[in-house]
Amino acid sequence: MAISGASAIYLMLADPIGQVRSPVLINEMFAREGIDAVMVPLNVAADGIDAFWAGLRQLKNVRGLIVSVPFKTDARRLSDRAGPHATLIGTANAVRREKDGTLTCENFDGLGFAAALKKGGHAIAGRRALLTGAGGAGSAIAFALASEGAAAITVADAAPERAAALASAVTRAFPKVQAAAGAADPAGHDLIVNATPMGMKPEDPLPLAIQNLTPTMTVMDIVMKPRETPLLAYARALGCPVQYGAAMTDSQMDLWVGFLGLRG
Amino acid sequence: MAISGASAIYLMLADPIGQVRSPVLINEMFAREGIDAVMVPLNVAADGIDAFWAGLRQLKNVRGLIVSVPFKTDARRLSDRAGPHATLIGTANAVRREKDGTLTCENFDGLGFAAALKKGGHAIAGRRALLTGAGGAGSAIAFALASEGAAAITVADAAPERAAALASAVTRAFPKVQAAAGAADPAGHDLIVNATPMGMKPEDPLPLAIQNLTPTMTVMDIVMKPRETPLLAYARALGCPVQYGAAMTDSQMDLWVGFLGLRG
Repeated sequence: MAISGASAIYLMLADPIGQVRSPVLINEMFAREGIDAVMVPLNVAADGIDAFWAGLRQLKNVRGLIVSVPFKTDARRLSDRAGPHATLIGTANAVRREKDGTLTCENFDGLGFAAALKKGGHAIAGRRALLTGAGGAGSAIAFALASEGAAAITVADAAPERAAALASAVTRAFPKVQAAAGAADPAGHDLIVNATPMGMKPEDPLPLAIQNLTPTMTVMDIVMKPRETPLLAYARALGCPVQYGAAMTDSQMDLWVGFLGLRG
Repeated sequence: MAISGASAIYLMLADPIGQVRSPVLINEMFAREGIDAVMVPLNVAADGIDAFWAGLRQLKNVRGLIVSVPFKTDARRLSDRAGPHATLIGTANAVRREKDGTLTCENFDGLGFAAALKKGGHAIAGRRALLTGAGGAGSAIAFALASEGAAAITVADAAPERAAALASAVTRAFPKVQAAAGAADPAGHDLIVNATPMGMKPEDPLPLAIQNLTPTMTVMDIVMKPRETPLLAYARALGCPVQYGAAMTDSQMDLWVGFLGLRG
């Protein structure tokens, strides 16, 4: 049905925007189920989120947002209140506008990440994880790994202090988990997760020392476009079990439907 | 086709938003012609347009806007440059984002108004017009009436100084036209145009002294929803030729397609 002044409006924020999957999945659901609503992908300038957010607060018919890279920390910071996962992680990927105009955020990345691995038949409990990337998605994944019982987590990031801060935060919240900052080296790990954007562009460097991958390591990449990043292509050729990033979004669909009231 | 990160995004601003027709017409055109684009109706808070506009400037995939009540003066004020009609009238109803991110506005209301009357078989040249409402749409209509050769224009507005300012501006631009502020009284006129929002809500007062309408007067109302306002219902019952407001939007479609590049 054609979008009109009576339609429910949802927004999705990212920079860049071309690769986003959530609006496609959600708009297909709206069409399939005859829901008078649309999710609009908005390519906010990376340094313009504060100005955008002040404008967002003036939009009376926007019901909520999905938030992607690089705005997940901003979404937590700029919302009026946060659900338990967003509070723990410090970032958010969904924001709901309440009837009084205030904004409530929550983060479903960790739940989606864990569900994607499980759906792919990959265990988390008891494993030694290498996580590259300590940004918004990386933080959500670190807490999800800990929550699901990983034995150890090494966090690698181009900014070592960021990796150390995330490892410390995970240890504080989950004292039984060995979490520490370290190099982007798979050696000594058996669950490898790339949570950096490396792999989106053909000219990107690889996010970790692939020469030390071995076939017993499970490798997941949260990059969704391309579906198979150079990291995953290499791991798959090596015989590693791999998990594609798209499943992380797919697994969050039902959670977003509930939180944002997408079915009205 | 489902809206994705690759779609062209257009916005339409209004408060209230429920009655707007332009996004419906334009989204139907996108669907009919298989164009990967959407026009999203946004209900900006009436006092929030400056904050919204600062946010708008951060949106790299928004190609342009249609602007309706009460934001047409703001659209002119906040854009970086204006086309000839917007410059003359001081208001704008379409805004294009250029490749460098700057915003160019233009006003197509006057052209749409004149085209709607002509298409309905109603003359403008030589007639004595009563125009109620000296806001954004009223201003565009006053200049269009003068440009099309109306003999006289009486401008009535709840704020008399606003009516006087518009009448003076029209006289300066079109010295041959008798333009003056006056009462909302049809007596002595033969073309009656309501450019106030009165008639949108059932409890609105009538915008002019209908007891002085006579069957030789042509009556147009720019209110689009309801299609037939109490003013038009009364005029039609009296036997007046009437013109509905929707034609003013319909007549602008081709102009907007060109200005905003809606066909890509």
